[in-house]
Amino acid sequence: MKVICDRGALVESLNLVGGVVVARTPKPVLACVKLTATEDLLTLAGTDLEVAVRLSTPRVEVQEVGEALVPADKLQQIVRESTDPTLTIETDQDVARITGQDSKFKIFGHPPADFPPIPEFKGDPDFEISAADLHRLIAMTIFATARENSRYAINGVLLERDGKKLAMVATDGHRLALARGTCKTSDEAGRSAIVPTKALNLLLRLFDDAEQTVKIKIADNQILFQTDEALLASNLVEGNFPPYNDVIPKEGDKKATLDTDVFVSAVRRAALLTNEESKGVRMAFSDDGLTLSSRAPEMGEAEVSVPVPQYQGDAIEIGFNPGYLLDALKVIDTGQVQFEFKAPNKPGVLRTGPNFLYVVMPVNLQ
Amino acid sequence: MKVICDRGALVESLNLVGGVVVARTPKPVLACVKLTATEDLLTLAGTDLEVAVRLSTPRVEVQEVGEALVPADKLQQIVRESTDPTLTIETDQDVARITGQDSKFKIFGHPPADFPPIPEFKGDPDFEISAADLHRLIAMTIFATARENSRYAINGVLLERDGKKLAMVATDGHRLALARGTCKTSDEAGRSAIVPTKALNLLLRLFDDAEQTVKIKIADNQILFQTDEALLASNLVEGNFPPYNDVIPKEGDKKATLDTDVFVSAVRRAALLTNEESKGVRMAFSDDGLTLSSRAPEMGEAEVSVPVPQYQGDAIEIGFNPGYLLDALKVIDTGQVQFEFKAPNKPGVLRTGPNFLYVVMPVNLQ
Repeated sequence: MKVICDRGALVESLNLVGGVVVARTPKPVLACVKLTATEDLLTLAGTDLEVAVRLSTPRVEVQEVGEALVPADKLQQIVRESTDPTLTIETDQDVARITGQDSKFKIFGHPPADFPPIPEFKGDPDFEISAADLHRLIAMTIFATARENSRYAINGVLLERDGKKLAMVATDGHRLALARGTCKTSDEAGRSAIVPTKALNLLLRLFDDAEQTVKIKIADNQILFQTDEALLASNLVEGNFPPYNDVIPKEGDKKATLDTDVFVSAVRRAALLTNEESKGVRMAFSDDGLTLSSRAPEMGEAEVSVPVPQYQGDAIEIGFNPGYLLDALKVIDTGQVQFEFKAPNKPGVLRTGPNFLYVVMPVNLQ
Repeated sequence: MKVICDRGALVESLNLVGGVVVARTPKPVLACVKLTATEDLLTLAGTDLEVAVRLSTPRVEVQEVGEALVPADKLQQIVRESTDPTLTIETDQDVARITGQDSKFKIFGHPPADFPPIPEFKGDPDFEISAADLHRLIAMTIFATARENSRYAINGVLLERDGKKLAMVATDGHRLALARGTCKTSDEAGRSAIVPTKALNLLLRLFDDAEQTVKIKIADNQILFQTDEALLASNLVEGNFPPYNDVIPKEGDKKATLDTDVFVSAVRRAALLTNEESKGVRMAFSDDGLTLSSRAPEMGEAEVSVPVPQYQGDAIEIGFNPGYLLDALKVIDTGQVQFEFKAPNKPGVLRTGPNFLYVVMPVNLQ
């Protein structure tokens, strides 16, 4: 193959495909990006055998169609360090030559036939959603997934569709985030699947044009996401997601409406006087406002009082891990947030309208 | 003591003093900042027993003079996370109370008497230099110090003064950087001292106002730097600095003048096809220009050709570790740089006028 490619387009594409490529692997072909030149497109693909990404750019002049397998990191470094407006990539056997105005690079690759096949998006999508909505659903849930590997099913995010209604849910056993959205089109049926966090993190970078429509299809143990330029395919996480509806409390009888910024600042300050042994912040809600207090033995104490614009119900004192609250408050983009409780030993629920809720277990304040 | 302090001033001061305070230490007082409130100044001081920093701010209302020893990291976090325009700091025994409009913090400190004494700048300075010049001398040399601890004397930068002429020199045995400047005032005598890199890195942050004049004094085994607001005192590095004048070659007979940006880009690109085993880049200089080439076994090859605006002498092929060249080129702020050679097995010398030179050993290209 031989292509003359816009360097800016190549930098962008390699950044995205590079996100899936693993640097250290016993299979050297997995450290490569596959280049495919067709009549007027250059397609780049990468995979780690769990997640695969493929994207195409028309900002290329194809002089000879063909394909090649090139180490992703070296290609990316060369393209990034070059200053030429275009670069020529020519391959012959397993050698790629990258030529700029004043530079020539030769890098050793592998036979293209050794690359694992990248899944194809075949037939009609199950449903379509705007990239902006998909972004929001991912960002509002992915932070709540479990980090440790012992409970495999909750390392991913549950994607659950019922007709045009789409929900994403994540939990680590201490908190649970649920975001809801609407599909643009969908088939009648519904289906759920658990998507690994690596795939979702890549989606956030891949589909960053809010105007795009993303086609989604679940087939066998895979999920495929496709736009005009890009495809992401991922294996699904096997196992059963916990019955999350059982975890979400019915409406609490104590409800505080808080200004998001004010609440974030107060939680961050109270969190300073917590430590590993005493990581709870005590929160006293009442008609008069909210007072947060914390105490770290041998270190000191904090007390922060902020107004509560609206409060319903009896006063309550309840403890929370400030880190769990901040994780959710960081992604909330509404000016106000509602915080609901039943009792000091029952979970609290953060809500921002009907499309997001966050259940968080309280901390025992002895 | 009791002070009402401008929060912005406090953030700035704590960032600077925090740079010297060590987080993990068997002596808890060294993790503290010492606060001293006098009639209309708040002074903050920190030390790690090798380097000490003290600075004062007048942006304070002192209600009760006194002193206190407060854990630096907690104080810094509280001040940074607060949003109040001013904070009140009040101490009683070893407890500090920090109060904002809606917040109260209590942190446990230590008796101020337990803090090691901070050296005083006594008498006249040996010499004075503008902060801008001091900055330049440090930045142009500090990168060339040795990282490993085996050769103690070259872990610091040699500061050598002869009347108003000041030179700073650093080397790690593979390369040597020498920067020269002029003092604003000085005594007749001259003296040299080796200053630890930690102190110099702190100086870069501490004296960032180019307009300031820095007073410098060497006394016993210490060096002191002082401006109107700040003092930095450092122990000197003991030992003998290598006789660096012997290392600097007499003028080479081959001289290339290069555009700095063009040279940097070429070296960075050629460096991509080097690795641990073959880390040299071959440079062929002649009247026709410069061609850089590199080869990493099993990975590939690079060749980059750039113009040489001016060349004197016979053509030469010589190898260099690209990392060593880039370290110096990064801090060079002139549009052009001169590179001089004698022979492929003799050091090259980068120069930018009379005030900076950089000797770098060549790499054997087999």
